[in-house]
Amino acid sequence: MTRRKLFRLDEITGQFGGTLLGDPAIRVSQVASLTAAGATDIVFISQARYLGQLLQTKAGAAILGADAPEAAGIARIICANPYAYFARVSTLFNPAAATVAGTHKSAVVDKSARVDKTASLGAGAVVGKKVRIGKRVRIGAGCFVGEESSIGDDSMLHSNVSVYHGCRIGERCIVHAGVVIGADGFGIAREAGKWQKIPQIGGVDIGNDVEIGANTTIDRGTLEDTLIGDGVKLDNQIQIAHNVKIGAHTAIAACVGIAGSATIGRNCALGGAAMIYGHITIADNVSISAGTLVMKSLVQPGTYTGVYPFSTHQRWLKNAAQLRNLDELAERVRTLEARLGKDKGNSQ
Amino acid sequence: MTRRKLFRLDEITGQFGGTLLGDPAIRVSQVASLTAAGATDIVFISQARYLGQLLQTKAGAAILGADAPEAAGIARIICANPYAYFARVSTLFNPAAATVAGTHKSAVVDKSARVDKTASLGAGAVVGKKVRIGKRVRIGAGCFVGEESSIGDDSMLHSNVSVYHGCRIGERCIVHAGVVIGADGFGIAREAGKWQKIPQIGGVDIGNDVEIGANTTIDRGTLEDTLIGDGVKLDNQIQIAHNVKIGAHTAIAACVGIAGSATIGRNCALGGAAMIYGHITIADNVSISAGTLVMKSLVQPGTYTGVYPFSTHQRWLKNAAQLRNLDELAERVRTLEARLGKDKGNSQ
Amino acid sequence: MTRRKLFRLDEITGQFGGTLLGDPAIRVSQVASLTAAGATDIVFISQARYLGQLLQTKAGAAILGADAPEAAGIARIICANPYAYFARVSTLFNPAAATVAGTHKSAVVDKSARVDKTASLGAGAVVGKKVRIGKRVRIGAGCFVGEESSIGDDSMLHSNVSVYHGCRIGERCIVHAGVVIGADGFGIAREAGKWQKIPQIGGVDIGNDVEIGANTTIDRGTLEDTLIGDGVKLDNQIQIAHNVKIGAHTAIAACVGIAGSATIGRNCALGGAAMIYGHITIADNVSISAGTLVMKSLVQPGTYTGVYPFSTHQRWLKNAAQLRNLDELAERVRTLEARLGKDKGNSQ
Repeated sequence: MTRRKLFRLDEITGQFGGTLLGDPAIRVSQVASLTAAGATDIVFISQARYLGQLLQTKAGAAILGADAPEAAGIARIICANPYAYFARVSTLFNPAAATVAGTHKSAVVDKSARVDKTASLGAGAVVGKKVRIGKRVRIGAGCFVGEESSIGDDSMLHSNVSVYHGCRIGERCIVHAGVVIGADGFGIAREAGKWQKIPQIGGVDIGNDVEIGANTTIDRGTLEDTLIGDGVKLDNQIQIAHNVKIGAHTAIAACVGIAGSATIGRNCALGGAAMIYGHITIADNVSISAGTLVMKSLVQPGTYTGVYPFSTHQRWLKNAAQLRNLDELAERVRTLEARLGKDKGNSQ
Repeated sequence: MTRRKLFRLDEITGQFGGTLLGDPAIRVSQVASLTAAGATDIVFISQARYLGQLLQTKAGAAILGADAPEAAGIARIICANPYAYFARVSTLFNPAAATVAGTHKSAVVDKSARVDKTASLGAGAVVGKKVRIGKRVRIGAGCFVGEESSIGDDSMLHSNVSVYHGCRIGERCIVHAGVVIGADGFGIAREAGKWQKIPQIGGVDIGNDVEIGANTTIDRGTLEDTLIGDGVKLDNQIQIAHNVKIGAHTAIAACVGIAGSATIGRNCALGGAAMIYGHITIADNVSISAGTLVMKSLVQPGTYTGVYPFSTHQRWLKNAAQLRNLDELAERVRTLEARLGKDKGNSQ
Repeated sequence: MTRRKLFRLDEITGQFGGTLLGDPAIRVSQVASLTAAGATDIVFISQARYLGQLLQTKAGAAILGADAPEAAGIARIICANPYAYFARVSTLFNPAAATVAGTHKSAVVDKSARVDKTASLGAGAVVGKKVRIGKRVRIGAGCFVGEESSIGDDSMLHSNVSVYHGCRIGERCIVHAGVVIGADGFGIAREAGKWQKIPQIGGVDIGNDVEIGANTTIDRGTLEDTLIGDGVKLDNQIQIAHNVKIGAHTAIAACVGIAGSATIGRNCALGGAAMIYGHITIADNVSISAGTLVMKSLVQPGTYTGVYPFSTHQRWLKNAAQLRNLDELAERVRTLEARLGKDKGNSQ
């Protein structure tokens, strides 16, 4: 392991702002957790309830919120958004590995493809006809990029990614291993007891600064493109069906499924394993809780939830049995009310 | 972009039937959405409630149902099943790219494999011992086909598909990128606090005309084959466990999981993210709604649902709190009924 | 097909124990299902209710539990745990294919990697800088193993597996096709309406005897490693987020999602499609039912469930409508109780 570069705390605040309390000459080289940190590490706390843990840490410095200037004897940077500040510091300490330009000798590149000379194509990568690969793009080992697709400047595809023909990936995107972009949408028509395939002639259009988690799938559109807006962040194993549109800066946790032709607004947050019906529209700034199935359009910002509350299995058995008869229970309550005379008040 | 071939409307009805209303000499070359269509595009409407949108479209012609012959001034083809008709027209306009027979020089094919000379093997594809590859089969870049497996005539594997040893894929199948066929089923036996692996010695047997969506997984059987019937259509990220049997022409939406040894009938429809318990049997012609967990066998055709209805988070909190005590609530209603005398009727 | 090796029943009990009833000279060569078995096959029954089926089987012998010694005229091995015994017998009959040591000429191995000479690297496999590959390891076609990762002795990666840099896989592990280990965790910080990426500088540390199902994803840690304990068994399409810790010998069924920084105990069992919130802790010996979303820590062993009970769609519509108003229904019951005087007993 090579020795890490050390940064003075006042170098950090000089670059990213914030108020420095303590010795500006303290030098740190890495971010760490409160428990694992040593003298050349910097830690962060974004929630006041964890401030007590600062007493035990051996970190050299801490990034804290504006509500915590007096929290500890440790050197500290006070800022409005400790988590985002930490992101910047960690990025400073852990820069992406430099791209080594060039095409591995085992990669297969069609002669009609335009690959920028600063791009890096890994072992066994396959690049089809008329593909465009931008500046400083990195294509990982075993990736496939189909005919007439394009990858924007500074984007990266990790290993074994499949991009079908006619898809566009913007700039500064990160596509993790096993992702499939542009497979046929699930378009089938029933006729005489069999399914007819509907050709999927749209593509996929992915904006800039999008990150796509491992083994996520984004299908091509039936007639027009499936659209992923700028700054969208997708976790692993998400399924995005044909014709979906996702607004800019929406974040989606793992295992979410979005059915065909759904439109998701900007700045939304979808919790893990949430499922969105097809052909509905979700407004901007909507949060969907983990595990929630959304069956109709949402026009108001807010948080929406639909999860069966778990319990011990024994208790679930009892409650679930009643739930199966809930309509009947409600009817019995209506009967009781009728017998007592609903409008009588506490007349007994 | 090459100029598209134009088709007269009477050429289309000559080939596919239907009643042509309007100028038979109108020529179209592509399918399109109502909003994007131009003069050489044909659109379709399968639900009467969208017929009003015909007034705005600039399409050259429309495919409409039998209930809508008078709907618009636009040239139109009237047929019994507009969606299926559209599928045929779109397939006519968008034929699959011709297969270029041959094995890419970077593909690795065992000398005992029998690859038809009309098949196409992409860059980096790996074909194991005694594999059989049929006529006009296309194997995408980076695919692996294990020992003694077979791929039937006219089938296609997109990129980075893995087919383990001893699996059979029928004719005219489409297997999308990242699919894994024939991985070991999840067979483990507990002994002395550890798990013993059960060898999975069955294979996977996939019929004809099956389509399998991106990153779907189909495990091999424990003792006999996992079976996928003819004409089954599988969307993306579906998990099919060992020993499952799926009847012909069943369609399954994305993110569905089917546990081990379940049997699904013919002509079923499983909505997205539905989950099927192991060792149960689902009859023919059953529909399972999206997000529904099926815990026991179903012998009657019909639609089955089990989804927590979502609401605003605040409302969910209140209702879920009551659900946790539903058994107690039912008991309180019983008590009220007993106190009032259940069989008294409206005796007040 | 080559002729299989035959084993006398007393050879089997000599090796694995159990009580042999019937002719010790009977010879069997394969395991089979009760219905498909022939004279040289051995079957097993682990649940007494299936013992009746022994009357029809044509198997040469059966593995049965201690409660069933008199069950049939068939030769049989009586043991405490028939399923585990069957696992051992099947493993004896179906040994893993011998590894052919060596590196395929199309594999790409960095010269700084240390690959044991008994290891086998498949076609198109890519092994990065300073990777260590142990004894008898098999790396399948199209796998990628990133810089400074290591694969322990006797482990196997099936085809198209992606292992990012700085990850460790233990000994005797089986990693199925399409698995992604070490992709970046979903760490993003919101600032000024956009998402900042948090570098994920931890790795993934996987113990010994772990099996990982097809297309499962295990993310690298934010600061420290994501940890998978010894003997953990993971089915297909599981998502394990950054910083998760899974205790030894826990088994997890397909389609499960575990959110970031969750800790799962030892010897747990998670049913298919269960979802675990982030930052919670599940005690040892907990079972989570299929389809259950766990939102808070569990400190007691036991079985926990939270699943909406399915029904016909019509019945679901009625019950779900009431569930949306359950809080109001409970209020109405409270009102009825107040009007009747809750403490009066059956005073009518």
